[in-house]
Order: sequence, then structure tokens, then C-alpha cells
Amino acid sequence: MKEIRETAKKNMQGYCRVCAVCNGKSCAGEVPGMGGIGTGSSFTANIESLSALRFNMRLIHDIQEPDTRVSILGKSLDIPVLAAPIGGVSFNMGGRISEEDYINAVLEGCYEKNTLGCVGDGVPGFIHETGYAAIKKLNGKGIPFIKPWEDREFLEKLEKAAATGADIMGMDIDAAGLITLKLMGRPVSPKSPDKLADIIEMIKKKTSMKFILKGIMTPDEAVLAVKAGADAIAVSNHGGRVLDHVPGAAEVLPGIADAVKGRITILADGGIRTGGDVLKMLALGADAIMIGRPFSIAALGGLKKGVIKYLEQIKSELVSAMVLTGCKRVTHVSRSILYKSS
Amino acid sequence: MKEIRETAKKNMQGYCRVCAVCNGKSCAGEVPGMGGIGTGSSFTANIESLSALRFNMRLIHDIQEPDTRVSILGKSLDIPVLAAPIGGVSFNMGGRISEEDYINAVLEGCYEKNTLGCVGDGVPGFIHETGYAAIKKLNGKGIPFIKPWEDREFLEKLEKAAATGADIMGMDIDAAGLITLKLMGRPVSPKSPDKLADIIEMIKKKTSMKFILKGIMTPDEAVLAVKAGADAIAVSNHGGRVLDHVPGAAEVLPGIADAVKGRITILADGGIRTGGDVLKMLALGADAIMIGRPFSIAALGGLKKGVIKYLEQIKSELVSAMVLTGCKRVTHVSRSILYKSS
Amino acid sequence: MKEIRETAKKNMQGYCRVCAVCNGKSCAGEVPGMGGIGTGSSFTANIESLSALRFNMRLIHDIQEPDTRVSILGKSLDIPVLAAPIGGVSFNMGGRISEEDYINAVLEGCYEKNTLGCVGDGVPGFIHETGYAAIKKLNGKGIPFIKPWEDREFLEKLEKAAATGADIMGMDIDAAGLITLKLMGRPVSPKSPDKLADIIEMIKKKTSMKFILKGIMTPDEAVLAVKAGADAIAVSNHGGRVLDHVPGAAEVLPGIADAVKGRITILADGGIRTGGDVLKMLALGADAIMIGRPFSIAALGGLKKGVIKYLEQIKSELVSAMVLTGCKRVTHVSRSILYKSS
Amino acid sequence: MKEIRETAKKNMQGYCRVCAVCNGKSCAGEVPGMGGIGTGSSFTANIESLSALRFNMRLIHDIQEPDTRVSILGKSLDIPVLAAPIGGVSFNMGGRISEEDYINAVLEGCYEKNTLGCVGDGVPGFIHETGYAAIKKLNGKGIPFIKPWEDREFLEKLEKAAATGADIMGMDIDAAGLITLKLMGRPVSPKSPDKLADIIEMIKKKTSMKFILKGIMTPDEAVLAVKAGADAIAVSNHGGRVLDHVPGAAEVLPGIADAVKGRITILADGGIRTGGDVLKMLALGADAIMIGRPFSIAALGGLKKGVIKYLEQIKSELVSAMVLTGCKRVTHVSRSILYKSS
Repeated sequence: MKEIRETAKKNMQGYCRVCAVCNGKSCAGEVPGMGGIGTGSSFTANIESLSALRFNMRLIHDIQEPDTRVSILGKSLDIPVLAAPIGGVSFNMGGRISEEDYINAVLEGCYEKNTLGCVGDGVPGFIHETGYAAIKKLNGKGIPFIKPWEDREFLEKLEKAAATGADIMGMDIDAAGLITLKLMGRPVSPKSPDKLADIIEMIKKKTSMKFILKGIMTPDEAVLAVKAGADAIAVSNHGGRVLDHVPGAAEVLPGIADAVKGRITILADGGIRTGGDVLKMLALGADAIMIGRPFSIAALGGLKKGVIKYLEQIKSELVSAMVLTGCKRVTHVSRSILYKSS
Repeated sequence: MKEIRETAKKNMQGYCRVCAVCNGKSCAGEVPGMGGIGTGSSFTANIESLSALRFNMRLIHDIQEPDTRVSILGKSLDIPVLAAPIGGVSFNMGGRISEEDYINAVLEGCYEKNTLGCVGDGVPGFIHETGYAAIKKLNGKGIPFIKPWEDREFLEKLEKAAATGADIMGMDIDAAGLITLKLMGRPVSPKSPDKLADIIEMIKKKTSMKFILKGIMTPDEAVLAVKAGADAIAVSNHGGRVLDHVPGAAEVLPGIADAVKGRITILADGGIRTGGDVLKMLALGADAIMIGRPFSIAALGGLKKGVIKYLEQIKSELVSAMVLTGCKRVTHVSRSILYKSS
Repeated sequence: MKEIRETAKKNMQGYCRVCAVCNGKSCAGEVPGMGGIGTGSSFTANIESLSALRFNMRLIHDIQEPDTRVSILGKSLDIPVLAAPIGGVSFNMGGRISEEDYINAVLEGCYEKNTLGCVGDGVPGFIHETGYAAIKKLNGKGIPFIKPWEDREFLEKLEKAAATGADIMGMDIDAAGLITLKLMGRPVSPKSPDKLADIIEMIKKKTSMKFILKGIMTPDEAVLAVKAGADAIAVSNHGGRVLDHVPGAAEVLPGIADAVKGRITILADGGIRTGGDVLKMLALGADAIMIGRPFSIAALGGLKKGVIKYLEQIKSELVSAMVLTGCKRVTHVSRSILYKSS
Repeated sequence: MKEIRETAKKNMQGYCRVCAVCNGKSCAGEVPGMGGIGTGSSFTANIESLSALRFNMRLIHDIQEPDTRVSILGKSLDIPVLAAPIGGVSFNMGGRISEEDYINAVLEGCYEKNTLGCVGDGVPGFIHETGYAAIKKLNGKGIPFIKPWEDREFLEKLEKAAATGADIMGMDIDAAGLITLKLMGRPVSPKSPDKLADIIEMIKKKTSMKFILKGIMTPDEAVLAVKAGADAIAVSNHGGRVLDHVPGAAEVLPGIADAVKGRITILADGGIRTGGDVLKMLALGADAIMIGRPFSIAALGGLKKGVIKYLEQIKSELVSAMVLTGCKRVTHVSRSILYKSS
């Protein structure tokens, strides 16, 4: 990994410092780029809300070989980790490798380690085009995302997404805050509960894909997502890139899990870096998690091999954390593994 | 804005560093100058009390084009933002542009974007003279401030203020702490409740101007302001420039709003930098807000054009924050848009 | 003051950095020197516990010329501020001025501004000898301190202290922790309640001096001091120089005041730098306060003139803080001037 | 000590910076080396949880010569301090002295000051071999540790440990998290309650050694250790070297003491640097404590003489802290010496 990170540092120069601790501080405000918006506080909150959680270390038990496999949205994954949808290598990461090489690396690396990568949508159009093509090439082994466009544009993209052969798709509804898109004449917007239900109904009618609604940060909207018929929510503040001063995913996840756990698949996204972080999110109520920036660094630093190495590291850390906290399987992680100060 | 800030950095050299985050840390103790008094903690508290507030991000709703207009003290404003009264370009900001150019830039920029600027009072006399002249030139489109002088001086200035054609005036009562003024033989002082009522009665008799009492930091004094007949209070610690170790405006605002909301117009001033900050203050109970130092930087960096650019940026951020938190109009912003940790 | 601080910086080189904020961080562990022991945390706690306290700023009142005079232990003081006992210029402050010039500067400066300075005790003997001589020269206008020696040495020093003509004396009981003194064969020790009562009885029998017990940090020991017959306690952690990880004086003062206020004179010592800090300590329950390091800096930087300037600055800050918080007199300062977050 | 630390700095170059405050920040992630794993947060938590505890300073009492002696696990110690098991000079500390010189220095220094050192186990085999030989050379005056190996390897080492003549042995069960050992084909693992009881029964049958279970971080596992028949537990997060984001020993100790105090000997390990830290751990419920890294630095900086100097310093600080908090003996330290903020 050290070598991969060194290469990434060179490839991402001017866009990402590949810091020892990736916490949004050095890159505050760098959007485009890899930073959080404004003061970077929403990015940082993702990291700090996770590092504030601490483990009860326990060794008097018989768990030696914990089970990391999970089945979500009809897919069996070797570890409960997805690569989050990130695109735009040229303006976000420096463009020293091509969009195509990048997204292939992420998707193929994930596929080879028996998990899945997502691909992003955005402007210009080659972002989703490249991504969707990469999923198609892998016979649907990837998750296409679509931004919350107005009807016609959404429908067009939905058809393209279905054509990739993917079984799952997603919409990052929080991208509706990107008024730059609106200024460019590209109409993204929030969706009312009824509108959202209509969209999901249309997806179900036109395709066989499961639907992830990404960008949920409150229990009330998690309930709305359930009611609208979504298959999964992704708790996410969009990597801190749309609104400054939003809490971290790990802060809001417990309340959201209390509200909808068991009624919908819960994904968590934001600030996850290590296998320990994965385990914390599971303890808070996530069924699986998404990781963003570290996959970009892995891909920019070592292409598919980098992605594989990173996934192997995550798994090894996850196994170790499970042994040291006494967790038998990722599908049953109790909040009691987290330390509560008295 | 980047260019404007670069120019401001040159023009304010030795007086303001135009930091990436304007938080009172680098300029602690620089009074005169742009800093807070003493350790700068009161300036910093303004910033930190705002950044400690975080948003509940919500996207499942139908708010796409929120309404930012507000009507306060008989005036319709395009956004609920006033330029706070700041003067003394020569000793506070380096003097590389004239007092006149400065205050014209602020007032005209605000007027052009359908809001209002305030002008300050102080020693030497050309500060208020230049400011009042600028308001007159704009046919009263500005808010003259008067310091809490003893009777004769206050009365003289009141007449000058009325002569500008302004419909609103203000007094920054916390300037009574500036014992430098007293040492210079210029008698400023606190005002007893009765004295304050007398002053306001006199203003109402002699002029048709609405009256803002600026420098309220406790619920009990907010109630006294209501009783004395003020039209508005401005919650403000004077930018942290009169007393070290005072809480931030955003800390005391909720208690003050609980005490007087609906009985008097509530303005909030202190540490507001972005449209998100504006929205936070509205959520805490402000009807409109004042911004200080950023307008000085905008004016020193780009004169009227700088002020306009800054106002456009604030509005764009405000609109974006309203969409991402689901706020339909600035006149009805609920505290529920702020995240409460459990 | 700026000039005085510049000179002090030169004179104290290698012993005190004369930092912008004197908080014990740069000099952590520098004992001898001006630092706190160990990590310096007890020194720092004094500063941080004061800066954590914040003022309710209030201006709607009629207090324009607050009264700073106080009468304690039979003495009228212009401001409730004493110079704390600090000696050992050569090994603590660099020795670029003589012990005699130093202590004369402190005592004479205090006397000229109608307050009092204390003089310290210690090893070698010239510390107390020089200090006591300086008090005698001022006809008793100073407060001699004696360390908690064993009987014979205490008695000898008591006679010398009485011979200075002073009306007040003190013992810094927390110096009993200085095991260096014990290793040098100089027996200092804690005192049992009975022993302390005996000592005070002896002082009362042999002299007419009032007695200050310095080094009280808990309510229970404050009560013991009352019972033993002390005239005053000084809440103090010895400037953080005897034990690491002790709370700041401002943290423990409220509990101590709750326990003994009105039954004994309460002095507070530790981290006070400004007139605002003085006012905070009064609000917490102190009758008067002691200041240490800043007097050393003032004396090393400007001798008697430096001490006078510093006292004038403190008074001006105190008056300003009293106006801005609405305090009429230092003898009646309410805790309600301090902000309580809800 | 200053000289010893200077020498250690040279000898440990590239492995330990011998920082002024040894808190795991500079060396975060340096495993092997002297750091904590990952972000170093578990190492840092040890330090910060101790420094967050503060003393009630008390001097009105008759305690002048406190008693530091303690008797644990059948051994009388001059101070309640053991050297923790640390090995691997070559890969953890730079290898500028030999494993043998190192462990002899630690054990002999401890023995000379009437306390005991522990020796570690690990891979490669010469670590425990050198350590066990050193204990044998001292006629059993040391505590051999064994990692939680599978049966055969554990049994072999147990026989070797017994052959040293030691009266006490230990197992650091948290080493089961070191999956590197497992990858090397060296089977370490957690132990179920039954398995642990079997192991302890075997130890008791085959040897006369008392048994310390090291790596307990929760009250429930402390109770399991009591039930399994252990003679002592060591509250420890393994110096923060096996799992990132674990609380500090001083955070979990009070809850553990509440659960098992008096039913088993409680040792505490993690972040203890000074005599004051020792006293804090005793106040929280430890019967004696272990110190790790500082002994390594003392040994690398001055061999046996360094270890002795460090022990003398700890004792002197402990005595001073006991006098300044009014503690008569280390066997009866009340939690009331710790400050509780109200």
C-alpha cells in the first residue's frame, strides 16, 4: 500500500495530498478537487464522528475466524464494502490517468474481490458514459448512479443504466444542492415524497433493478424513503461536498437505524478508511458501507492492483477488529462492542 | 471573489491578513485594526458558535426556488442581510482607499442588490460625516449609526442623521465601553432604562426614523429594549472589539429570541460569513442579520463591484442552503433545520 | 507596556519568553525558571479555567464610574489586586537585575498605586532577607511570606517578619511539596489542623499581624483554615509549580466560596492577567486577588515604572469590564455577570 | 535523567524520538517501532485519559513520610510499579544494544530497587529465550509472559517459564489480535472462558506460579478472569499496539475496579509516566501498575543505571504527590484525591 500511495501522491498532485490521515483539513474548500465544501467541516465531521467511537476490546471468547460475508440487495459480497460513486478524474483528481482506466480499475478490482463498485453521474456526459460502459463490460457487475435530474433526463439515463445489465442502481438525491448544475441549465432538484414514489414505481416498471437512495441524513427522511418504496438508503453527506456544517454519517446513523432498521437496507458512507471503521458503522446499524476517496487513491496509485490491495487491507483489518471485539459475523454486530464512557 | 480577496490582501496589508477562514485568531488584539480585543476570544466566539451549529440535510421535499425576501422596519430587502456599521478606513484598514470611496462602495453595492448598508460613527468626526453624506447622496438608502454620546452630542448627530433622509437609524450602545473615547473627553456611556426610553421618545418626536439598539447580549436587556420602545435590537458583541471573553452572538441569540421574538425586530451580528451562517441565525430567531468584516474586505478588494459580488455569493449560498435543508422562505425558518446531537 | 515587555524579554532571556499569551505552554517544566512543573498543566489550568469564563455584556444601566476600592485585612486598596510573593531573580528570571532592585520595584510600585506587594521566602536566605528589608524600608508596606518550616526555623523567620513593621503576613503551605527543600535538609511540611491552630495562635500572641494561609484548593481545607483561625486564605496551586495536574484556581474557587465566604477573607491567585480576569475572580467569590508572573515581567521590564504601568493597565481594564457588565463596585460583584450556556 | 534521555535519543534514532511528552502522536502507526497502531489513538488515549484526571491538592494534614510499599501476588515491592513486558530491541528500538543487555538492565534495575520486571514473548524465539535466561540468572526475580498460543506451544513455553524460578507468570491475551503471528503460522487466539479456566488449572497443577491475565478492558471480562481463577488482571490495551480506537486504561479502570476490586489483584498498564500517574491509577482502583515505554527509554539510555534512575525518579514523584494530596500509604488511596468538576 505504501508504494501505491506514493504513486497516487504523484498522480494526484495539485488535487489530493494523500495525507497520512485523510480528514478533509488540508483540502478544505477544494471542490472541484477532493475536498469538502467551504471550511471542509462536513468532510471532517465524517472522520471525527468515526474516530470518536471507540471499541470495547474483548479476548475471552472463542471467535477466531469471523465471517465477513454479507448478502444485500440480492448480492453476496465477501465483505460489506462497496466502492462509492466517484467520477471526474480530470477535474477532481488531476487527470493523469483516463476516466476509463480509472473506473475499470475500481469496478474490476471490486469484482475480483467479490464485492461491487458504483459509478457516478455528472457533467460532462462522458462521466456516466464511461462508467456505464465499464459496468456493461463486466456484465452488469457494478452499480450505476443517476443524479436527481428532471423527468426527461432522468428517464434517458435510467434506460442507459438498465442497459448495462446491472441489478442495482442508485440516485444521489443530495446532488440537488449543486446549483452549479442548475446554472448550467441542467435541472437537478429535490423530490417530493410523491414524486419520489413515482420515480421508484417507474424504475420498477421499466427495469428489474433494486433502488438505492443516497443522501439520507435524518430519521424522518429515512422513513420517507421506506414509504416511497426504496430498496436501500445510503446515509451520506456526499463526502461533505454539497453543504458545509453537516454532521458526520456516523453521528446520524444510530438515529436512522433506530427508525428504519430491518425495513430497508441501510448503507453508510462517509469517512470510512479502515476495517475498524467498517465495523463501527455495522455496530451503529449499517448493513453494508461505501468507501469513496480511498478507492480513488488506490486506483490512481495502482489501478486494479491498487484497488485489490486496498480491499485486502480492509478485510484483514476488519477480521482483526472482529477478533479483538468478539464479533462472530458481520451480519450480527452489536452496539455493545462500542465503548460508552460513564 | 478570489481576485477581490487578493486585491484586499494588498490594500489591507498590515491591518488584515484576509485569512482563508476569518476567525479572529491571527489578528487577536489588533484594535485599532480588524481584530478582536485582548486575546480575540470574543471575535473567535462569534465564529465558533456559528460553526458549532450544523444542518439537518434534507432533500425529500419540493422546495426548489426558495424565497429570500424579507421586510423589516418598513423596508423590503432581497436578502435578510445588512452591511454592519464599520468606519475608519485609515486606522482600521490601512487607508489605501479613502473613507469616502469605501463607504460609497458599501452603500451603493447594498442598494444595487436591494438591501441596505449601515454607516458608523466615531472619532474623528469625518467618519460619520463621510458616512452620512454617502447616505444623503443615495437619498436616504442607508442606516446611520450614532454612538451613545451624552445628550448634547447625541442630539447634534441625531439631527445630522435625520437630514440624510434615512428611515432607520441605530445606536451601538456597547461602544460605551470604549474608555478611550472618554479619555479623549468624548463622553460615551451606558444608558439607564429611563434614559434609553427618553432618547427613543426624543427620536420619535424629532424624526420619523425607526430605531435599532445594537449591542444586546442578554435576554434581560432585550426585554429592557422592548420596554424602552426600540424598534429593533441587534444582538452583537461589537465584533469582539470592546470586551474580551464574551460569548458569540449565535450562543446568546436563542435565549434572546425566546424572550422577545415577535415583540421587536431581531437582528443578529457577529461572525456571519456565508449564506449558511445567515440561515443558521434565522433558525435561531433572527429576522435579519448584519455582516461586518467581509464587507470591508469586499470593498477594499473591489469597491462597489466587490460588495455586489459578495452579496451575490451570499445569496447563492443562502439559496443552496435553503434547498438542502428544505426551507421555503427566510421568514419562516424552523430550528428543526439544525442538528441536535443525542 | 509594549516597551516594558520588550525590555523584559531581553532581561529574562532563557528564563521567560514573555509570550503574547502567558499560559505556561512554552515554559512547561521549567522549574527553576518561570514555568509550571512537569507538563505545565497546573499552570495552564489557571489560564484556561479563567478564559473559559465569559461575560454577560450589559449596557442598559447607569454605571459609568464604578468603584474599584476594597478594604481587606484592615487595609484600604485602590484596586483589589496584590502582587504575589515571588523571589529568586537569579535562578528564576535570569538575574540581569538584582534581587534588591526587583523586590523594591514591586513593593514601591504597588505602594505608589495604593495597593500592596508580597515578598517570598526560600533558599538561599537572601531571598527573604532582601524582601523583608524592602518592606522595612517602606515602613511595613508589604506582606512577608514564610514557608511551612519546622518550628525553630518558622519562629526565627516570624520574628524577622514582624520586625519589618508589616501588618499582614502569610504562609504558602503548598511549598511543603517541595521535597528539594527537604533533601537540602530544610524541613518544610504539611501542617495538621491542630498544628496549624498552634502556629496561628503563636503568631497572634507574638505579633499583631493578620495571617494569610496560601495554597488552599479544596472546600474542606478552606473550612479547616477558618477553624484554625486564619484571617485569610489564598486559593492557589502555587502557580502550577509544585504538583502537575491540579485544577485551576478559578475552577475550585466557587466551591470554596460556597463553603467559607463571609467567614474569612478569600484571596485568589493563579493565571490572572487582566482587569477582566480580576473581575471574574471577584464574581466567583474572591474578596481580592493576587497576580504573580506579570508583576515579575513588569519589574524586569521597567522596574518600579513597569509595575506602576501594569497596575494602571489592570485598573483601566477592570473599570472598562465593570462598565460593560454593569458592576457598581468591586465589593459587590454578582455571579450573574458570567455567562451560563444553556 | 536528562543525560540518559539524550543517550536514548541517539540509540533509538529512527524508532523513538524520546519526545518531551511521550504521547503516541509523533510515532502514530509505527508498529514495529514504539508507536501505537493506525492513527495511534489507543496509545494517545492512555496518556490523555490520565492527564484528564486532576488532583485535589491538600496540605492541612500530618502526612510527611508516606509509605510506598505494597505486597502483591506474594511479593513485597518498594513501590507499586512493575516494568511491563516489552521485547524485540532490534526491530522495535533500533538494535543499538543487544536483547540480552536490554532485558538484563530492566530486570536487574528493578530487582535492585526492590521491584520486578516482566519479560515479553514473541517471534522470533530469542525474545523469550533471552528474557527467561535473564530471570533465571536473577534466581527467578522477574515475571515471564507467554502469548496466547495454541496448546502445544503454550505448554512448551510454560515449562520454560517455570524453569526460570519465577513465582509469577503472565499471559497477554490481547496479543491474539496480532494476525501477523497467525499469518506466520504461529497460532495465537482468544480463549473461551472454559479454555481459560483449563489453562489456569494446568498452570496451577504443573507449577507454583501465580497467574496474571493481561489485556482486560471491560468489567465483564474482568469478572470472567476472576471466575477462570486468575490471580491478577492487568488492565491494558497493549500500549495501543493491537487495535486502533480503544479507550485508555485510566478510562476503563474505574468500572473494572467497581466490578472485581478485592476479588483479584488489579494491575493497570498504559500511559503511566510519572509518580503522579501511578497515584492516579491507585486512586482509580489499581493495586499496582506496569510501565512500558519509559523503561525501554531508560534502558536504552543508561542500561541498569538508567532503569534505577527512572525508578528513583518515579518514587520521588510518587512521594511528593502523596504528600501534596494527603495519602498515607499506597495501599489505601481514595478516589477523593481526584478533582471532580461540578
